[in-house]
Amino acid sequence: MGTVAYDTVETPEGRRDDQLGGSASYFATAASYFASVGIISVVGRDFDKSDRELLEGRDIDLSGLHEAEGGTFRWSGQYKDDLNSAITLRTQLNVLEKFSPSLAPAHADAPFLFLANIDPRLQHRVLDGMAQRPQLVACDTMNLWIDIARDSLLQLLPRVDTLLINEAEAKQLTGARHLPQAAAGLLQMGLKTLIVKRGEYGAAIFSRKFGFAMPAYPLTKVVDPTGAGDSFAGGFMGYLAAVGDLSEEAMRRAVVAGSVMASYAVENFGLERLAFLTVKEIDARFKGFEELMRFHPLGGGQGLPLRTRYGG
Amino acid sequence: MGTVAYDTVETPEGRRDDQLGGSASYFATAASYFASVGIISVVGRDFDKSDRELLEGRDIDLSGLHEAEGGTFRWSGQYKDDLNSAITLRTQLNVLEKFSPSLAPAHADAPFLFLANIDPRLQHRVLDGMAQRPQLVACDTMNLWIDIARDSLLQLLPRVDTLLINEAEAKQLTGARHLPQAAAGLLQMGLKTLIVKRGEYGAAIFSRKFGFAMPAYPLTKVVDPTGAGDSFAGGFMGYLAAVGDLSEEAMRRAVVAGSVMASYAVENFGLERLAFLTVKEIDARFKGFEELMRFHPLGGGQGLPLRTRYGG
Repeated sequence: MGTVAYDTVETPEGRRDDQLGGSASYFATAASYFASVGIISVVGRDFDKSDRELLEGRDIDLSGLHEAEGGTFRWSGQYKDDLNSAITLRTQLNVLEKFSPSLAPAHADAPFLFLANIDPRLQHRVLDGMAQRPQLVACDTMNLWIDIARDSLLQLLPRVDTLLINEAEAKQLTGARHLPQAAAGLLQMGLKTLIVKRGEYGAAIFSRKFGFAMPAYPLTKVVDPTGAGDSFAGGFMGYLAAVGDLSEEAMRRAVVAGSVMASYAVENFGLERLAFLTVKEIDARFKGFEELMRFHPLGGGQGLPLRTRYGG
Repeated sequence: MGTVAYDTVETPEGRRDDQLGGSASYFATAASYFASVGIISVVGRDFDKSDRELLEGRDIDLSGLHEAEGGTFRWSGQYKDDLNSAITLRTQLNVLEKFSPSLAPAHADAPFLFLANIDPRLQHRVLDGMAQRPQLVACDTMNLWIDIARDSLLQLLPRVDTLLINEAEAKQLTGARHLPQAAAGLLQMGLKTLIVKRGEYGAAIFSRKFGFAMPAYPLTKVVDPTGAGDSFAGGFMGYLAAVGDLSEEAMRRAVVAGSVMASYAVENFGLERLAFLTVKEIDARFKGFEELMRFHPLGGGQGLPLRTRYGG
């Protein structure tokens, strides 16, 4: 559940007008490589047939994509040198203003539910409408809701399994200056697992049982950062749904899978890269992360080559 | 070769007046856990006997630590909420102003040489004075030298094996907006290996043959970031000297060893933590990084659980 939008984006690499975007589009496209996925969202009468076909071409179930009177949600933004943060130029909610997500029976039974960044009251409502508690519920949010719907958001945390947010939001939500403190605060608020998206600095898992951290893929060219976080979430949840495993080991790999999808998403505007990947490319970048992060661990009882006399 | 200083430091966690610091002190202390190390630097007549004893207690060779008329180099700085960057309040060069490093014969044969952040002309001079080319020469620098001694610095790059700098400096030196571009630029300038220190975001290696990247250790409390980069360099070079191996595999582990030492250094003021570590603690944090970064790689011919029909 999230948005389907027409984005107008300007980056140092160029510009696109009214490109297909929105959290649900990016999430579902990334997830579709791993698992069967459907979108719960709304578009206006102006939603283009070719955009519908693009998503359906990725086998995304659009039975939950409602069409309402009015225009599709529109966002326009700009990225300057700092590709980590977008400058919003204009937001037109349009049909999103009166959006009240209703669940088709097929969706009410979904074993994996992602509540993308949207008013937390809508996130609650979708969760309320599920016929049974999904195996995994994850959600995202943003600074706006932390500011204006904080209570509703705090009530959501114990209801979900996983919160996927960016580093600044994790700090804002808790008032902590440093990420590990912010993570500890969120876990104390009743959250089970926190996944932090750190843009060009990678991603991390914080849970009561373990921690995982990884760098981002060192891309020499980032064309359009829009949708990177939702593409990450789609790879993350798509991987978990595909393996049907929520163990620590699976979560670690899922974060790598999410990073793979995000790294491809930003290589071109909108879905221009993300929607056209091959199995080979996805596998290759997963292996690229293995290669990037690997180092020989300390063997069995063996330690580092430390000078014992001066080491203790 | 670097500085030995008295630092006055204020951080959100407290304050210390005239604590033993300087790049050479941090570097040598960190390296001393792995290998035999000596300092080439200068102090004033005010250099305290207890500080000399602290370094000698770690078996650091101080025969290259000259004592000159005047006061020891003094730096005073402050860290506010952003622990990644210090605000310099005062710098008193004192004896450093006329420092002209001269090498004792024992040091002229050193197989590993670290040229800490100092005027690049002094870095050249030390390198000129070596009896033979060391197996590994690494150097650091800072924004000041990039501004005022750029030519000398650029001439140094092809003379060293490894440049260890922070992310902002790598970008400043090349004018690139993003780290991978900056790294590519530096390798084109004749540098063999670039090690980038990213503070709370970890560290990375860029070379023509491979790349490595790792996150920082998720510390819940950072007391004093001063010396983190030099402690990193000390762990990095100390490890390489201990194993006597400059292969890609050794470099990857050396960056982890550097990260271990940096993560301990910042846990207390000055050398208060770094100089009093045990072998067990160092091994434990190395294993902590293994645990933090590990994920199951793709097996042999096996790929991710991708839906081949919709995967391209």
